[in-house]
Amino acid sequence: MPNSPPWVIALLEQLRHCVETDIVCRGDNQQDRSALEGHPPGIVVFPTQQADVIKTLLFANQHGIPVVTRGAGTGTTGGAVSATDGIVINLSRMNRIIEIDTKNHCIVVEPGVILETLHQAVESSGLFYPPDPASLSECTIGGNVAENAGGPRCLKYGVTGDYVRGLSGVYADGQPFKLGGKLLKNVAGLDLIHLLIGSEGTLGVITEITLSLIPLPQERRVFLGQFASTQLAIDGLHTLRMTGVCPSAAEFMDRRCVEAVRSRHPDMSLPDADAYLIIELDSPPFSLPDLFTETGPEIWTIRRSISPALKAIGIEKMSHDITVPPAQIANYMTQLAIISEETGFIMLAYGHLGDGNLHVNILRGTHSTEEWRSQKENLETRVVELAVSMGGTITGEHGIGLTKKRFMPLMFSDTDIAIMRSIKKAFDPNGILNPGKIF
Amino acid sequence: MPNSPPWVIALLEQLRHCVETDIVCRGDNQQDRSALEGHPPGIVVFPTQQADVIKTLLFANQHGIPVVTRGAGTGTTGGAVSATDGIVINLSRMNRIIEIDTKNHCIVVEPGVILETLHQAVESSGLFYPPDPASLSECTIGGNVAENAGGPRCLKYGVTGDYVRGLSGVYADGQPFKLGGKLLKNVAGLDLIHLLIGSEGTLGVITEITLSLIPLPQERRVFLGQFASTQLAIDGLHTLRMTGVCPSAAEFMDRRCVEAVRSRHPDMSLPDADAYLIIELDSPPFSLPDLFTETGPEIWTIRRSISPALKAIGIEKMSHDITVPPAQIANYMTQLAIISEETGFIMLAYGHLGDGNLHVNILRGTHSTEEWRSQKENLETRVVELAVSMGGTITGEHGIGLTKKRFMPLMFSDTDIAIMRSIKKAFDPNGILNPGKIF
Repeated sequence: MPNSPPWVIALLEQLRHCVETDIVCRGDNQQDRSALEGHPPGIVVFPTQQADVIKTLLFANQHGIPVVTRGAGTGTTGGAVSATDGIVINLSRMNRIIEIDTKNHCIVVEPGVILETLHQAVESSGLFYPPDPASLSECTIGGNVAENAGGPRCLKYGVTGDYVRGLSGVYADGQPFKLGGKLLKNVAGLDLIHLLIGSEGTLGVITEITLSLIPLPQERRVFLGQFASTQLAIDGLHTLRMTGVCPSAAEFMDRRCVEAVRSRHPDMSLPDADAYLIIELDSPPFSLPDLFTETGPEIWTIRRSISPALKAIGIEKMSHDITVPPAQIANYMTQLAIISEETGFIMLAYGHLGDGNLHVNILRGTHSTEEWRSQKENLETRVVELAVSMGGTITGEHGIGLTKKRFMPLMFSDTDIAIMRSIKKAFDPNGILNPGKIF
Repeated sequence: MPNSPPWVIALLEQLRHCVETDIVCRGDNQQDRSALEGHPPGIVVFPTQQADVIKTLLFANQHGIPVVTRGAGTGTTGGAVSATDGIVINLSRMNRIIEIDTKNHCIVVEPGVILETLHQAVESSGLFYPPDPASLSECTIGGNVAENAGGPRCLKYGVTGDYVRGLSGVYADGQPFKLGGKLLKNVAGLDLIHLLIGSEGTLGVITEITLSLIPLPQERRVFLGQFASTQLAIDGLHTLRMTGVCPSAAEFMDRRCVEAVRSRHPDMSLPDADAYLIIELDSPPFSLPDLFTETGPEIWTIRRSISPALKAIGIEKMSHDITVPPAQIANYMTQLAIISEETGFIMLAYGHLGDGNLHVNILRGTHSTEEWRSQKENLETRVVELAVSMGGTITGEHGIGLTKKRFMPLMFSDTDIAIMRSIKKAFDPNGILNPGKIF
């Protein structure tokens, strides 16, 4: 604990006596996958049961100590980054699958369960939990709930929040809560469950989650469509959906994204086209028009290689998960090309065509580090403002955290934000939970 | 205005000058479909645009006058019943369908649009808005959002709240708000949209709603299954779903419900069975096991005739829309029969088998009015407490309003309720919006 001030060391000793769990001081619990450094936490608690969380929060609330809750730290906007000295609650050891209830089509889990582990357990029972963020082999279900995570399958199946039937946890003052459960329809009282979903650790600490499951699709087939323009790809998807085809994913890549992948992996080539659409079907009808050719799951390798390829080409890059109304995507791409032209920075976008959620990448390329640093904020603002100007949002699935706070006024009025702050105060009067995030 | 005190008449004159809309004093805007009398409102405003709502709320907030917002008044728990003197905002004249956006798969409407009108408009564009509460020919979409309405199709398609992409409206202090829009994925800030959904007019007045639409199913077929017990019906549905069949509705009726219908409508007879399951399919596979026989849509007439038949037989009746985890339904029915036996009052339940949402009816039958009155509260408590004891809820789709307030502590801790009250205060510091509801 060489970096911790004396008060931290004194508190650590106190907490060690009241919480029956590991307490260690270490610096590797301060970051996520944003570029933020974070502040080394004084104390990292690894609860193994709700009682540990209760004791930790009682203690923290009494002493006014900031608490940052984290899962695997795979977030990209700084939600799990420690912004101040204080306590980190690392929930990775609360990782039990408590029950798979096939009769009620649900699963009860602790927050530290890795999403892929959850997927495997569920699927071996013949059931299905659709949300599939790219980090699924590492991220925790608790983090998914805290950030309301998405993924390609959200087009057909909705986001994490759509599957949450019940949440148990602990409020800032150490009081446990239990909201919802195995039941489906429930309209009693104000919807605290949806308020906690996506609240990025600012309203409470979640210790148990009940999720809806659906029957496991029996078949999954992948198709590739090639188009002469983004607009034609959008039109192609629209036509498909109007004929009753319901893709489980509809991912968009343009020529430059595919070229970026090919430059690193010469074996990953695709037929020449300006725009590509990957369509995954998991329910009949399994036939698509001639525009599409059935392909293998290896197409997903190309899709997943885009982000690292752009990073390699771009030296450094920034990515924003904006969403626009789906029909605006072509317009967004056109305008993005104009901004790219004007500023001289390469800007590429790919992502979830069906739901309008694009990953916009800005590459440093041949620009100097100084130029990059001085321009970054301006470039980010332009791509985010562009989305909002088209009726879109500043974040479709990554959350606000620290990195997107400055864009909140683009989406919300002063009154909206004042109400959010009052809600935060209702849950956490002393402001100990994940201070400095969202607002 | 014979019943209005002088202050109401004085305020009415003031409001008449600042709001360009009809203002009338009338008593027929005080009730809903609960048995509650309500209090005659001093003033009923019929806004035709958001500006009228803003002016009314600015005025009401300044003078601390209670405001009850209502649509068609088809609710059953008193949410739209005026509990005090004050202003009623009747949104039935804000009934324009602003836009059906087929490219973005959404519709933008004012709150006063009748649900059936919305269904027809959407379906004539080849699209589909699934939620279908029984009052669909009369209820308004604004009321559906305020109560988070359900219906049989919710099993496959989810409830009203699952379709809301954007809400515009006016906060208690007269500030307009615009949250979300035509976009799909959006995780910016705390989820105020879901907080407003189902808040029963206590947090704001909604003036515009953007709803997701999905492709219209091309085919719809209805099947009837007969079973020797409730448990066998539940097992039958479970087996269906595990083989990939995804019913768009799965409604349950028992022998006594069907007999009640037959006693009033001798032509509406069904083959003899203890339990019936109506399965509606709107996507392939359209084949069901031999347990089920394809039938016509007239089966829905029988289903919809249950409630009036029970009312006729029961002289008077109470109905509660409890939900239990789906696998608990047979257990709930068994325990309900025991309570019925013990108390001597006939108790019947029917409803949405797949999602565990039952309409429990308690009949007065041959009991005297006095006995009914003295026993009502106790009977209600027992059927509601039974649901909660099985991990269920006090209301699956009707909301809390006034009639279910006393059950809130069964579902929520003092801390939960204190947080809800603080949230209410964050939105409505002077407590003018629908006072006395929910809490």
